[in-house]
Amino acid sequence: MQRRIITVGRECGSGGHTIAKLTAEKLGVSFYDKEIVEMVAAKTKLSPDFIAANGEYFQNGSLGHIFGYGGRFSATMHTQSALQDQMQFVQSELIREIAEKEPCVIVGRCADYILRERGDVLNVFIHSDMPYKVERSVREHGLEEKDAAAILAKRDKARAQHYRFYTAQSWGDMKNYHLALDSGALGVEACVELICRAFAL
Amino acid sequence: MQRRIITVGRECGSGGHTIAKLTAEKLGVSFYDKEIVEMVAAKTKLSPDFIAANGEYFQNGSLGHIFGYGGRFSATMHTQSALQDQMQFVQSELIREIAEKEPCVIVGRCADYILRERGDVLNVFIHSDMPYKVERSVREHGLEEKDAAAILAKRDKARAQHYRFYTAQSWGDMKNYHLALDSGALGVEACVELICRAFAL
Repeated sequence: MQRRIITVGRECGSGGHTIAKLTAEKLGVSFYDKEIVEMVAAKTKLSPDFIAANGEYFQNGSLGHIFGYGGRFSATMHTQSALQDQMQFVQSELIREIAEKEPCVIVGRCADYILRERGDVLNVFIHSDMPYKVERSVREHGLEEKDAAAILAKRDKARAQHYRFYTAQSWGDMKNYHLALDSGALGVEACVELICRAFAL
Repeated sequence: MQRRIITVGRECGSGGHTIAKLTAEKLGVSFYDKEIVEMVAAKTKLSPDFIAANGEYFQNGSLGHIFGYGGRFSATMHTQSALQDQMQFVQSELIREIAEKEPCVIVGRCADYILRERGDVLNVFIHSDMPYKVERSVREHGLEEKDAAAILAKRDKARAQHYRFYTAQSWGDMKNYHLALDSGALGVEACVELICRAFAL
């Protein structure tokens, strides 16, 4: 079956977002990353901040931002779990609708798992070693070099927890991906080209 | 730096050997897989059977085949460990010599780790799901379908143990490879093309 969809999982700082966006541009297809946040917000009463914070990350802590009215909401952990589950349900439905509608590239959000029943999806994962991710995060996103490794590791841990909770699979385990690329060793352009080739083959 | 060497780790039954061989043919470079067994035998007093059985696999059990004179050698486990270490030392030296001598594709045998100090190596891993590996092993290697999954899993476990012992890394962890490919989903020909592209980029 001809492939129509590419999902891209990625480590924080690996350049996965950029690689996915350039891949979509090169293929002339739609691109979904943070775009999904507003689309989920439009379908729920949840704030974009809550969706951005929980759509890919397992959170423990303050719930003040859930409804976007700053700290006055005293939810229990049970409520937070229910909201996370609701958001994940709506996000999953949305990802299935997007995939049905048009060829596209979708970043993160368990899309590889959500679309597992389709036969037209190429699942990609982008990773690299910590020195490359730190250098890139300092250069591209202005992180302090001394803090970068800890910040990146914490975000990836929250992504891994979120992925495991909603898929019962291990995030970053090559078995879940058709193509796993080391962006530090290969470079951004080479990754884009390899994904495009794999998509077309 | 221009790449000269490709190492290919692979799961049993994934077609990794075939993919590596076709890649070497397409690139017009030398190919080393079982070829290494005879080369190590020529440098040691160990039998080819022992080298084939221990060069990639952790073994527990009979030692009768060590010197190729069938069962009369009563070595201790300590002796077996020493022989395994000696063989691994000679095999590692040989892999470094091969890499120094000529562009080539080297299958398994911790070559990615042994050559980690070079900057001209592309490290590849080939995997696929069990149904594909079983189907391929029955078709290509004549395994009984009912036994195939257990045989393949056992061999991969011994490879993983060998790799961990001599590298202190996890076999099949995408972090150790620049390119990890699902041969069942992509197909043998596509894997060959993607490796050749990554090698040239």
